[in-house]
Amino acid sequence: MNKVRMGMVGGGEGAFIGAVHRHALALDGQIELVCGAFSRDEGNNQRTADTLGLDDNRVYSSWEALLKAEQALPQNERMQVLIIVTPNHLHVPISIAAIEAGFHVFCEKPAAISLEEASSLKTALKKSSVLYGLAHTYLGYPMVWQAKHMVASGALGNIRKVYVEYPQGWLSANEESHNKQASWRTDPAQSGGSGCMGDIGTHAFGLVEFVLQQQVTSLCADLKTHVDGRRLDDDGAALIRTDGGASGVLIASQVCAGEENALKIRVYGDKGGLEWQQMEPNSIICRPLGQPFQVLRAGMGQPGLCEEASERCRTPAGHPEGYLEAMANLYRYFGKAVKAADEGTESQIANELGKAAGVPGIDSGIRGMAFIDAMLASSDSETKWHAVPSAE
Amino acid sequence: MNKVRMGMVGGGEGAFIGAVHRHALALDGQIELVCGAFSRDEGNNQRTADTLGLDDNRVYSSWEALLKAEQALPQNERMQVLIIVTPNHLHVPISIAAIEAGFHVFCEKPAAISLEEASSLKTALKKSSVLYGLAHTYLGYPMVWQAKHMVASGALGNIRKVYVEYPQGWLSANEESHNKQASWRTDPAQSGGSGCMGDIGTHAFGLVEFVLQQQVTSLCADLKTHVDGRRLDDDGAALIRTDGGASGVLIASQVCAGEENALKIRVYGDKGGLEWQQMEPNSIICRPLGQPFQVLRAGMGQPGLCEEASERCRTPAGHPEGYLEAMANLYRYFGKAVKAADEGTESQIANELGKAAGVPGIDSGIRGMAFIDAMLASSDSETKWHAVPSAE
Amino acid sequence: MNKVRMGMVGGGEGAFIGAVHRHALALDGQIELVCGAFSRDEGNNQRTADTLGLDDNRVYSSWEALLKAEQALPQNERMQVLIIVTPNHLHVPISIAAIEAGFHVFCEKPAAISLEEASSLKTALKKSSVLYGLAHTYLGYPMVWQAKHMVASGALGNIRKVYVEYPQGWLSANEESHNKQASWRTDPAQSGGSGCMGDIGTHAFGLVEFVLQQQVTSLCADLKTHVDGRRLDDDGAALIRTDGGASGVLIASQVCAGEENALKIRVYGDKGGLEWQQMEPNSIICRPLGQPFQVLRAGMGQPGLCEEASERCRTPAGHPEGYLEAMANLYRYFGKAVKAADEGTESQIANELGKAAGVPGIDSGIRGMAFIDAMLASSDSETKWHAVPSAE
Amino acid sequence: MNKVRMGMVGGGEGAFIGAVHRHALALDGQIELVCGAFSRDEGNNQRTADTLGLDDNRVYSSWEALLKAEQALPQNERMQVLIIVTPNHLHVPISIAAIEAGFHVFCEKPAAISLEEASSLKTALKKSSVLYGLAHTYLGYPMVWQAKHMVASGALGNIRKVYVEYPQGWLSANEESHNKQASWRTDPAQSGGSGCMGDIGTHAFGLVEFVLQQQVTSLCADLKTHVDGRRLDDDGAALIRTDGGASGVLIASQVCAGEENALKIRVYGDKGGLEWQQMEPNSIICRPLGQPFQVLRAGMGQPGLCEEASERCRTPAGHPEGYLEAMANLYRYFGKAVKAADEGTESQIANELGKAAGVPGIDSGIRGMAFIDAMLASSDSETKWHAVPSAE
Repeated sequence: MNKVRMGMVGGGEGAFIGAVHRHALALDGQIELVCGAFSRDEGNNQRTADTLGLDDNRVYSSWEALLKAEQALPQNERMQVLIIVTPNHLHVPISIAAIEAGFHVFCEKPAAISLEEASSLKTALKKSSVLYGLAHTYLGYPMVWQAKHMVASGALGNIRKVYVEYPQGWLSANEESHNKQASWRTDPAQSGGSGCMGDIGTHAFGLVEFVLQQQVTSLCADLKTHVDGRRLDDDGAALIRTDGGASGVLIASQVCAGEENALKIRVYGDKGGLEWQQMEPNSIICRPLGQPFQVLRAGMGQPGLCEEASERCRTPAGHPEGYLEAMANLYRYFGKAVKAADEGTESQIANELGKAAGVPGIDSGIRGMAFIDAMLASSDSETKWHAVPSAE
Repeated sequence: MNKVRMGMVGGGEGAFIGAVHRHALALDGQIELVCGAFSRDEGNNQRTADTLGLDDNRVYSSWEALLKAEQALPQNERMQVLIIVTPNHLHVPISIAAIEAGFHVFCEKPAAISLEEASSLKTALKKSSVLYGLAHTYLGYPMVWQAKHMVASGALGNIRKVYVEYPQGWLSANEESHNKQASWRTDPAQSGGSGCMGDIGTHAFGLVEFVLQQQVTSLCADLKTHVDGRRLDDDGAALIRTDGGASGVLIASQVCAGEENALKIRVYGDKGGLEWQQMEPNSIICRPLGQPFQVLRAGMGQPGLCEEASERCRTPAGHPEGYLEAMANLYRYFGKAVKAADEGTESQIANELGKAAGVPGIDSGIRGMAFIDAMLASSDSETKWHAVPSAE
Repeated sequence: MNKVRMGMVGGGEGAFIGAVHRHALALDGQIELVCGAFSRDEGNNQRTADTLGLDDNRVYSSWEALLKAEQALPQNERMQVLIIVTPNHLHVPISIAAIEAGFHVFCEKPAAISLEEASSLKTALKKSSVLYGLAHTYLGYPMVWQAKHMVASGALGNIRKVYVEYPQGWLSANEESHNKQASWRTDPAQSGGSGCMGDIGTHAFGLVEFVLQQQVTSLCADLKTHVDGRRLDDDGAALIRTDGGASGVLIASQVCAGEENALKIRVYGDKGGLEWQQMEPNSIICRPLGQPFQVLRAGMGQPGLCEEASERCRTPAGHPEGYLEAMANLYRYFGKAVKAADEGTESQIANELGKAAGVPGIDSGIRGMAFIDAMLASSDSETKWHAVPSAE
Repeated sequence: MNKVRMGMVGGGEGAFIGAVHRHALALDGQIELVCGAFSRDEGNNQRTADTLGLDDNRVYSSWEALLKAEQALPQNERMQVLIIVTPNHLHVPISIAAIEAGFHVFCEKPAAISLEEASSLKTALKKSSVLYGLAHTYLGYPMVWQAKHMVASGALGNIRKVYVEYPQGWLSANEESHNKQASWRTDPAQSGGSGCMGDIGTHAFGLVEFVLQQQVTSLCADLKTHVDGRRLDDDGAALIRTDGGASGVLIASQVCAGEENALKIRVYGDKGGLEWQQMEPNSIICRPLGQPFQVLRAGMGQPGLCEEASERCRTPAGHPEGYLEAMANLYRYFGKAVKAADEGTESQIANELGKAAGVPGIDSGIRGMAFIDAMLASSDSETKWHAVPSAE
């Protein structure tokens, strides 16, 4: 077998996102999970490994042990990529250690818990030749690529407005009524300086910048903490402006009672508009000015899709794909780039890295941190507009 | 026949809203249009009157002539209510003249073109005993009353968030490509100091205050004029806060290419959320926390509806009602109050006025003006929050 | 005033459809209700008349009295059109009496309670010059005309399939739990030989023949009576075939618990398909083969609408119209034809009658009766296909 | 590694369903594809194997070679399950050979191309102890299990009506304009006696019997072949009746131009109704009689879900799952049963077989064949009702 070999830190029983990564990496049959340090709880760690059918000698009690032991294995056996699905505050320390040990890294978002920490990670990456991917899952959806294409192709004309919203309701009540997920996400030490904005606001922000291929330059935010005793924001909104002259609104909230995971983006230019929502991800509504609206649909060979959208579909129209497939698309392109980097010719490397350019990396991570910083600063300020520092 | 007799100023051929008012007043068969001054263009005026089957001697060349002549008629013949559907800058002058002439007034929104002008109208009303209604059409929808009821009844718990949005696309291109509607609405002299906020932002704002029965106390706005040569805002958004501790976002835009008339409100409390949209007005989505979501449906005798919603339905479930019926509901309650005021006993008057309290009046008009002023001031300012002066 | 004068038989308090007719005739301000015999119950009759503001001397205790008294009035005062909204078994006797008395007739559907009775009505109409309209309300919707246009224009190519369904749930439990509506509709003496097929199956059938402009030639039906003690069918379905080579399915049921009034039609040809549903009446989904699907939207001046659809809209896009407006469209064209017939020149008459050709008449009534007969016969038979006799 | 080892026959490049099976088996990381004979075309076969990272010595030129070689391998290495994704006419011959060679079988539907052939397969299975699974993918959806649960729990009361429809449009034009998929599916020699009914009608039929847990006892069908030169039915519908006293309609068509894969089922009892559609698979509409309708949503830990639905979800609410996850659910339970059968204790075997009872097997296959036979016979007959022979 010649699959790409990956290991995982975090993601033991009771964690949500670790299992998502494992489903996603497995879906195309091109990647193999070969080792892991899933939990500091020994029993949890072992049970998780057993469920996954891992060899006992590649189940490690800590990420440090994992890195050390895997480095010692022969090159054609050892892990190529480390997947990091720990609480946020460990993302950078583990990423840097892995990078320095020569492993590629695929990290759950956010990349870091501060802009400064994200920059240190970028510095580490610059000194190394390893690849770094960031799990902005929603950017793996075919129809998000189609949205980007429609903007880039000029189909909407000059972009005037962008509205992005991400209402969830699962933090409407206090943490005691919740699970493990809620507790670390609302702990500043583990999660960083922001709760809701870090957890889901960054998704909304990243979606805007990806679809528009513009940078948000300034914003004016109002963040809230609604639940007694909670230490981080659980809700907020901002007016935003981009370097391409668009303006709009960003909403992210985890106290919209009854909402599930309703990420949605709408973009309007002087020639038309589009709308995409994550909970019905296989459709884009296109609103050409002065014509009836159209619905473009995901699926292999569907009319009207751009190449990037088409090649991210695994089924024909009407056979719905979803969240796991979106994440699997990130793994697909990242995995191919890793394979090329580790085994390929120069032209293969160039080719696969080109395609993998669609996988968010450290620059997305830095943008996310800059966004969070600007949101926090703006919300505390009496001044209207706050700059989001541009990525150099 | 003993119908309530109404006259109309404005609303000649080519106007949009005049015809809406005429359909709406006629729908229940309780109101009769008896006279009008529909256009300064004599031919248009006469043709409109002919189409409506008016007596020739009650078609007037100006609103001044109308008021004078109708005053001279016997009490049981003359117009009881003057409907004003002219461009905005005439709303107050005609309203005051009508009030002083002893006629009730039902006016297309906005009530005025400035807060000061609206206050002068309120002063005139205080000196008089006539009734004044304002055509905030959307407040005539049964399910808007249901939304208000759900908030008031505590079904959603303590209200945390409100998002209201009103995207339209019909002003995406410049006025030359449009009709009469567009041209006066974007002319400051006729429309007032704001374009989009005055035209549709006030609807969004009024809907928030009606459903929540809270006042918006402060806001932070970003208004735009996207189309070259246009003199008033055609787009904007604001962060908002209410005196009940809720916060949220208000969006109103007339350059969302491809959008029709997509007014929508979402409210979230600590026990649940609701969602209503004008383009599918017969449903409310109810999201009780921790339970599957429900859809309440308009219709006579439908389960779960409050009395105010039920009595605003004319058909059983599944026989859709719409915009004209919503406006007709305003006319229904206003007409009944007029009838009681002009012919009724004291207890009838009290009863009908109580029910007609649901018809927006001058206080709604003043709130709308205060909103526009605050939006304009905020948008021009570097300071983040601007107060919306409270109605005394 | 020069409105078309109409009178009404039936439709007292507690009746559903009478009020619908009154709203609908009033909506455009072109028709006046001048007299009525609303109920055999004297109190009900008078209260209904009072609510409507009728002159006391034009409130009649019976339809016979109404016809006699109105005939005696001067031509420019007396009723021009009699609206019949009684239980079904009176439709033909009253229609024929009105026709013989020289009045135009606008009748709630079904036209009759048997094919034979409907034929006798047609014979009466042939001997007379009065106009006869039948309230197939759904044929008043703009987007039903658009559907007809799309088929006729060849946009869908050669028609292969038609699926029509009309599920309601309001007769899921037995009559005791229901109102007046349910009881007469399930009484053979008042309703005719069929319950559900007569009440709503005919709407579904009429919609198919209208949109396709083809006749259903044969069908194979399975009717059911689900509720104990009910004497007529409350549910059924049929395979159908048309003279244009299309085939499909017709479903009508009043025991689909929880359904409101979900009439829906889908048509597919070799070049594309369309879908329209009554509960969201302002949209048609168009599915051109090999292209993304489109949604055409009702509204004045909307792109892509045919003339017949456009002129049936009273509001711009996004201001929803509904069931009452659809019925009002039947009254509009019928009223204009009556006005022309009674007062117009020959060319006006021809013109208005041409337009009024869109209002269903006696031939639709006869088709409906033939449909019911064929459904009943087929359901009782072991033979597969039963002919629907063609209208000569 | 201790994953369940599977091999595949069919599913080379250009085939649709083979890739679906491969994604589905891989998703949970519990199953490994270890060998295959993907295509009779040597190049295709090898390229497919390379893409999948298979060992060269386990890529076989024919299914016969595969069976022989795998039998010769040590027990802990050799394939445990053979997946069959060839054209239909090979399903039974390969299944029986695999069974006789001692391999478990997981077969794409239909199980066979005739009822007789399916019965011979059942006979072979009875003589053996291997497991047999049939890929009725739609029965893997969580919300299909929820629908079954709602019926079984009595939430809908006594079931009266079932409507199932499965419109597709991809065979609207002739085969030349299509791909490999279309050509063998419309070839009687490869596909069996029916086109559309075999391909998708069986899905609709199986869904009815699964959700209702009733058998369709009789039907009355009208099948069509719309496209010139096509040799099998591409469209049809039937009236149906069940042994539980329900009746309804089954529609399946591949010439509904513009439709994708719109499988939908509605069930109505005397206490309520439900609706599920495959293209929005994460929702069920529940219509309790006399109450507002509810929408149950898929997702881990979602309120209102039965255990069978919950455990088939991999993500929290609002993270949509789709078609591949549905198929993966079949593989999950089949894989666990295989593991237990091959390695487990008796109680483990019993436990896993119990759970795997949800995976359709040979009896579903036989029902599908009986359905096709009855549809073909009925369509050709002048008699109304045809029996669907019951599975003994």
